Amino acid sequence: MELISENRAFGGRHCRYRHTSKVNQCDMTFAIYLPPFASQQTPVPVLYWLSGLTCTDENFMQKAGAMKLAARLGLAIVAPDTSPRGDDVADDPAGAYDLGLGAGFYVDATQSPWQQHYQMYSYVTEELPELVESAFPVTRERAISGHSMGGHGALVVALRQPQRYVSVSAFSPIANPTKCPWGNKAFSAYLGGAPEQWSDYDASMLLAKQRYSLPILVEQGGNDQFLTEQLKPETLLCSARTSSTQLTLNMHEGYDHSYFFIASFIDEHLEFHASHLGLL
Amino acid sequence: MELISENRAFGGRHCRYRHTSKVNQCDMTFAIYLPPFASQQTPVPVLYWLSGLTCTDENFMQKAGAMKLAARLGLAIVAPDTSPRGDDVADDPAGAYDLGLGAGFYVDATQSPWQQHYQMYSYVTEELPELVESAFPVTRERAISGHSMGGHGALVVALRQPQRYVSVSAFSPIANPTKCPWGNKAFSAYLGGAPEQWSDYDASMLLAKQRYSLPILVEQGGNDQFLTEQLKPETLLCSARTSSTQLTLNMHEGYDHSYFFIASFIDEHLEFHASHLGLL
Repeated sequence: MELISENRAFGGRHCRYRHTSKVNQCDMTFAIYLPPFASQQTPVPVLYWLSGLTCTDENFMQKAGAMKLAARLGLAIVAPDTSPRGDDVADDPAGAYDLGLGAGFYVDATQSPWQQHYQMYSYVTEELPELVESAFPVTRERAISGHSMGGHGALVVALRQPQRYVSVSAFSPIANPTKCPWGNKAFSAYLGGAPEQWSDYDASMLLAKQRYSLPILVEQGGNDQFLTEQLKPETLLCSARTSSTQLTLNMHEGYDHSYFFIASFIDEHLEFHASHLGLL
Repeated sequence: MELISENRAFGGRHCRYRHTSKVNQCDMTFAIYLPPFASQQTPVPVLYWLSGLTCTDENFMQKAGAMKLAARLGLAIVAPDTSPRGDDVADDPAGAYDLGLGAGFYVDATQSPWQQHYQMYSYVTEELPELVESAFPVTRERAISGHSMGGHGALVVALRQPQRYVSVSAFSPIANPTKCPWGNKAFSAYLGGAPEQWSDYDASMLLAKQRYSLPILVEQGGNDQFLTEQLKPETLLCSARTSSTQLTLNMHEGYDHSYFFIASFIDEHLEFHASHLGLL
């Protein structure tokens, strides 16, 4: 694991690392924020943040304004990249922003040419936490959140592996990817087959089948340009009702899909996770 | 004035505008954050933020995490670009980051080929405030701050025109530009002549000559790679003692020159300005 950069921030440390990923068979980059006083004697829980299309490990750390409260709560944050990277990693031939590099969709690809490197589900749920928990002064208590494609990722990951995550939230998630253009395009390429075979990567379908035992928090901008065609939070809400899962969907009039929206409400999500992690 | 983009943020609005600048003789871009409840009936004061080398109007708004407290305080923030822009605007032939585009240094250039467009001192002290105060629900109470080259700009502007600014602060300012490589290179090009003729654009020289009637707040990272060669805050501190000006220089061990440093302490600066603006 190679340290790329380190910045002191809010009394803690923001570091970027490069490491060789076994599951993705390429070098991966991630960022970690460690709050003040995190040490082997006083390890802290971790919030994993999954970013959206076109993002890297940097967007959330630079733009969300989350570190101030994370420092106060004693919460580490880990932000992985959104896809495998490198010259030999397959990309969309047309260079589309919503397939290939920057668009891993947090699935384990089964189809050529993607399956060699695009194993983002295994990477974020297993390989990355193992690495983080072996290398940093953190506990095995994990929370997870994300934005857009990363909101989809966070919900799917937590719903499929509830034993691994104490709490889950999402901003503007792609909540029903098997029924929207972004999800159809990505899942067709990465997973092949037909939409009904992709249900394990669709938060709305997962939640309709099975009750999730903890409350779920979802934040959504009412002026989000992708709301109707791509995000479909109302479907997720219906699924939660079907399975008697407690889901809070906060709609915010006038807010869009940008990091200005995330920054406006990130503190509420940190407090939500902190309460489940026993930090409050 | 043309609206480029608008985002709802923390109950207020973040907007980017393009307008034709008379003094710079080109189109200029700036960003404004208007807190909730700013209206013609309840106008709010403005903090001008001057950014550093290579920045645009976007860096501070996206990375500083200032809007949350600005919203609560009822403080608008205006962030201009760091230089004139456009195909016919002179740039360093070698494309250096510290001269020409992105490096206006907040001076009124007198030398060819710069003098036609590089009139950033007049732009930030006169043209931009006039525009902002005519177009938005703001008062004529102005505070000013900035980072690095923009910290230099903020200090110079306030020291030269104390009647126009209620308070001034700076992060990592180029505090003695006539005695550092960045300042020498830029002032040689823009102003010509010799260092002793540039004293009106050197905060340390201005402050040594004349007492500033209000306290000045300066934040500096101890691990800043530019500290010794380029920034020289100790010279500014000596000048403040010479003129019996109250200047607080907060040195922060381990912090660098990045926006992670600015974000870590921006709230203290907002509160400093808010207290002078009567918002606290």
